[in-house]
Amino acid sequence: MATSPFYPPQRILMGPGPSDVSPRVLQAMARPTLGHLDPLFVEMMDEVKGLLQYAFQTQNELTMPISAPGSAGMEACFANLVEPGDKVIVCQNGVFGGRMKENVERFGGTAIMVMDDWGKPVDPEKVEAALKAHPDTKILAFVHAETSTGVRSDAKLLTELAHQYGCLVIVDAVTSLTGSELRVDAWGIDAIYSGTQKCMSCVPGLSPVSFGSRAVDVIKTRKTKIQSWFLDMSLIMGYWGGGTKRAYHHTAPVNTLYALHEALVMVQAEGLENAWARHQHHHQALKAGLEAMGIRFVVEEAARLPQLNLITVPEGVDEAAVRARLLNEYSIEIGAGLGALAGKVWRIGLMGHACNTKNVLICLGALDAVLSSLQAPIESGVAVGAAQAFYQA
Amino acid sequence: MATSPFYPPQRILMGPGPSDVSPRVLQAMARPTLGHLDPLFVEMMDEVKGLLQYAFQTQNELTMPISAPGSAGMEACFANLVEPGDKVIVCQNGVFGGRMKENVERFGGTAIMVMDDWGKPVDPEKVEAALKAHPDTKILAFVHAETSTGVRSDAKLLTELAHQYGCLVIVDAVTSLTGSELRVDAWGIDAIYSGTQKCMSCVPGLSPVSFGSRAVDVIKTRKTKIQSWFLDMSLIMGYWGGGTKRAYHHTAPVNTLYALHEALVMVQAEGLENAWARHQHHHQALKAGLEAMGIRFVVEEAARLPQLNLITVPEGVDEAAVRARLLNEYSIEIGAGLGALAGKVWRIGLMGHACNTKNVLICLGALDAVLSSLQAPIESGVAVGAAQAFYQA
Repeated sequence: MATSPFYPPQRILMGPGPSDVSPRVLQAMARPTLGHLDPLFVEMMDEVKGLLQYAFQTQNELTMPISAPGSAGMEACFANLVEPGDKVIVCQNGVFGGRMKENVERFGGTAIMVMDDWGKPVDPEKVEAALKAHPDTKILAFVHAETSTGVRSDAKLLTELAHQYGCLVIVDAVTSLTGSELRVDAWGIDAIYSGTQKCMSCVPGLSPVSFGSRAVDVIKTRKTKIQSWFLDMSLIMGYWGGGTKRAYHHTAPVNTLYALHEALVMVQAEGLENAWARHQHHHQALKAGLEAMGIRFVVEEAARLPQLNLITVPEGVDEAAVRARLLNEYSIEIGAGLGALAGKVWRIGLMGHACNTKNVLICLGALDAVLSSLQAPIESGVAVGAAQAFYQA
Repeated sequence: MATSPFYPPQRILMGPGPSDVSPRVLQAMARPTLGHLDPLFVEMMDEVKGLLQYAFQTQNELTMPISAPGSAGMEACFANLVEPGDKVIVCQNGVFGGRMKENVERFGGTAIMVMDDWGKPVDPEKVEAALKAHPDTKILAFVHAETSTGVRSDAKLLTELAHQYGCLVIVDAVTSLTGSELRVDAWGIDAIYSGTQKCMSCVPGLSPVSFGSRAVDVIKTRKTKIQSWFLDMSLIMGYWGGGTKRAYHHTAPVNTLYALHEALVMVQAEGLENAWARHQHHHQALKAGLEAMGIRFVVEEAARLPQLNLITVPEGVDEAAVRARLLNEYSIEIGAGLGALAGKVWRIGLMGHACNTKNVLICLGALDAVLSSLQAPIESGVAVGAAQAFYQA
């Protein structure tokens, strides 16, 4: 039987990502495909590189998008920097620290785990104790913005600590890039990866990465071959490395790179500091509305990510049923809790193009209506007004 | 300085890929992004899987697109099937056999090479000799359609041979899928990967793969963990495996999957056998024109891929200058030779949406005009007429 074309509805994506994509980005992606060695495409690649350097706040030459989602960016960092026998301290306070551990072990390293509760930031004291206890550690790896919990850890402080003890850092910035303050060069971050589908208003499928000079030295002086051909940065550099002569490595995802280019042009036009401030501003409005309703935040205020709000499900409420009604009746997607938090929390994203006044008010209104109709123990009918009052103040 | 949006020109992509993308596919890709766990998106994923099973001519349950280009699909096959110490016979008759060797070695295996000249198909006699000489071989790996040379090897016969000697096969079908006859189940292929940017008229960025039951058994009974988290099929199955409960593995490239869905709907509507015949038909027309001009094919007729035509550069002609003029004056991209063939050949692709009468005639006309203006030793002014005569016959 013939399959019909697929026409997706227009959702409002306020989960943990993908978030709403700007129509400008969608249109850019539909432009005619060029060859991946076309001189005009190669010029555009150079622009993407420059724009990513701006987004990461770095001068690192080795800054580019990996041709696959954020998980592959993580893998690119670990595959290139970890050799069999290396010791890596991995901070885990959510899902993605656990994935880092898997990466370390699959590339033959030993992972020393520093555990914090889900919903808490990485504890620098525990990290320092681990660094002291394991002086032969090569890398400290941590998540800047934990997508599973909405927690920000102190990337600047943790990087300083690592360097004091002679370690490199690998930083997961999937949910922070262009949404929260992040300064790769000023903070001295050695290797970092992100994703396009969060605060950059771009489609999923690419993973921006950046490697500093210390990390590049480690790659260049490896004793063993990188355990991946596709993610071998020493080969990828030949294609993304600049100059007019590009060595073919793999066929770049041409149209998705158009999308990233357009998203980054928009980031540049807004200004990075303005983008960070916008995420904070709408977070405050959402918070005013949620708290007026009586819904609590899980994460302590100092560690909250404005772009990803972890909130408690009111007592007695079937959280999955609420999400299904938001999706089916209002076309709004919010996220469920993961792991230990499953069933107890929601994750409301305010990322990139989705982070605006209209979405804050629609989301609060819809949540209010659905929870009220379920006789949930909340304060009905006040959330939208509280957010509006914040916007008008 | 502010970077401007990027507006690519409309090329005619007749190189080794990416090839022209159907406007229907580009439009599908620009539809609103859904969450990667949205019930409607999950339904679409099931359709993609079914359509890929049709394209591969297989009932294999484990059939899906890897969220990255063809090189990652290759890596997915080798990473999952090769364990340290395994012996793999790799047939090399172009660029991609060499990449297979890299893969085997990076995953800890030993590659036994069976070498054939670039431009020749894999020689089954040499393969059988290698299988006899190495009875402990686990896998035979070969390229069905060598993108670097335009050569088709006999996938059915090589698979039979491998099975006679108790080996699995890994087949590279990047350039053959939907362009040339390929029957995964009828031929008994155990593991196969392809790319979306060749004969499927889709954008680059995804790699369809399929694993048969013997390959799945090998994955399930591995002694060691797969040396990649991103490409670990046992984890990816949890997301693509069917059913309504999907385990999050990575964020799927949602919009690129819309593109693949649309491209596969078009393959289904045309019919696979019709698509194979269309590639053969326009190849014959191109051949009539090129031969009238006095340009020779490099590959013997029986092994020629209709979708990728390897032809000799006329004596005394600077091949790069010709390609540059075709691109700049006619917006036509054709491909250069690689490796030992660099400077001596061109590769003219007739793939997917680009494989049509109009492109054959435009390409012949442009090549005729450029070569004539350079006083190249060709027969001028007859190529287009020869192709037209073929079409009218």
